[in-house]
Amino acid sequence: MQTRLEDVKAQVQTALDEAMAHLPPGELSDAMRYACIGGKRLRAFLVMESARLFGLSDRESLPVAAAVEALHAYSLVHDDLPSMDDDDLRRGLPTCHIQWSEATAILAGDALQTLAFGLLTEAQIGGPETRLSLIRTFAEAVGARGMVWGQALDIAAETAIQPLDIIAIKRLQGAKTGALIVFSATAGAIMAGEDTAALTEYARNIGLAFQIQDDILDVTGNEAETGKRLNKDDAAGKATFVSLLGLDGAQDKARKLVRAAEAALEPYGDDAGNLRQLARFIIERDA
Amino acid sequence: MQTRLEDVKAQVQTALDEAMAHLPPGELSDAMRYACIGGKRLRAFLVMESARLFGLSDRESLPVAAAVEALHAYSLVHDDLPSMDDDDLRRGLPTCHIQWSEATAILAGDALQTLAFGLLTEAQIGGPETRLSLIRTFAEAVGARGMVWGQALDIAAETAIQPLDIIAIKRLQGAKTGALIVFSATAGAIMAGEDTAALTEYARNIGLAFQIQDDILDVTGNEAETGKRLNKDDAAGKATFVSLLGLDGAQDKARKLVRAAEAALEPYGDDAGNLRQLARFIIERDA
Repeated sequence: MQTRLEDVKAQVQTALDEAMAHLPPGELSDAMRYACIGGKRLRAFLVMESARLFGLSDRESLPVAAAVEALHAYSLVHDDLPSMDDDDLRRGLPTCHIQWSEATAILAGDALQTLAFGLLTEAQIGGPETRLSLIRTFAEAVGARGMVWGQALDIAAETAIQPLDIIAIKRLQGAKTGALIVFSATAGAIMAGEDTAALTEYARNIGLAFQIQDDILDVTGNEAETGKRLNKDDAAGKATFVSLLGLDGAQDKARKLVRAAEAALEPYGDDAGNLRQLARFIIERDA
Repeated sequence: MQTRLEDVKAQVQTALDEAMAHLPPGELSDAMRYACIGGKRLRAFLVMESARLFGLSDRESLPVAAAVEALHAYSLVHDDLPSMDDDDLRRGLPTCHIQWSEATAILAGDALQTLAFGLLTEAQIGGPETRLSLIRTFAEAVGARGMVWGQALDIAAETAIQPLDIIAIKRLQGAKTGALIVFSATAGAIMAGEDTAALTEYARNIGLAFQIQDDILDVTGNEAETGKRLNKDDAAGKATFVSLLGLDGAQDKARKLVRAAEAALEPYGDDAGNLRQLARFIIERDA
């Protein structure tokens, strides 16, 4: 899996570089490229591995993987803004608004969202109906019913009188990080015109496990490895899976979710080996 | 033309309301709806009138018109932010970040961009290839080579040592406001699979005339009618068409552009009557 992850990383970086190769020079395009540096590329991996399950080539799935990572990069840039999470470190580098300016960070995020939709129109992905299905599902996943809604819930939680309970946190994370993970993991099935149910089940479980592990790392991790500020949730008095379940409880919950994710992949047998390994990696990672 | 403009306004508002009818309740969806109140809907008018030139019905062009207005609304919300133009009044109402908060305004803008792309996937627009052509052209027009680039140039101009010259201002406006106007006016031709050259020429001319008239109103208009703060460019020492050409020179230039726009419509004869009237309206308006 690690070899494949490195391979996906390299391919996605090339695709993103190419997509941004002919932008007008200036702070905007520099900031867009800057925002796309690094990252684990787990979402791209999900796209390309789910495509493989249905016999689709990397050539077909790569623009979708690049679109997902461009969209993810935009969401991080906007989440880090002073009026949002106010973060100064991301992927081991100063955040976009620190490196450039707030205005440039907002615009770079805006243009990365546009770029993501543009990438989904690429002919190499497949027929027109396929691309439209992807675009429609993507828009649902990342807009006012999905990712952006989740971020709005997160912002609202910061000023709420009572900390969120476990149901509210699951709902928030299901939207904020879960929706794009579900899109990524089901992209292959959408492209192949196949049923998305098993991959949706897989993705919901790893999405939640991913968030729980993030909460665990916020307490147990170190900034050099994660490349971002830690202990922020605790300092802000925000409810997390760790504050609600305790450290042991959170780790136990994450393990159960990973087992459920692995079970969901059963219909795909050995072909889903990399996706199974990814599920385990999600709770074993320390960055 | 005024009757048709009112008709377009009503149709677009209904389409936007429907597109946002089933969003989760909360500040995010409230702010999105708020950002879509009012406006002249000139871009929607361009979409629906250009579609008519090719015998396309309102039913087919309406989602495209709504997409263009959702995109335009997002761009205004982000342009008005404190780190950008820092405006407190828009369309006669407090700007989105004043009414809600900066975080909510950023997220509402983000989700309106997503909504715009989602609208372009609607089946009633036409076949899959048609919708993909629109999405691809739209992404080019509003991203890092079009509208967002123009806004970045505008922000950069504020801190530049020398005010922009006329060539730089034309380039800036061609991207910031021109690109979406060109998309709107050519949408009908794209949908019909016809040549876009004449409508592009028309749109470039009215786009520039529109911006010149905005600069004129910034000096001669009143805030009650325009519904936004005026004299801002002058106060910021920003070069405008009025500062570069003088008031008479700017008015003269705008009239010439409108005549060129009308001439570009010649291939469409009487069918383009409403588009011709719109060109004249652009420089006669006082709001």
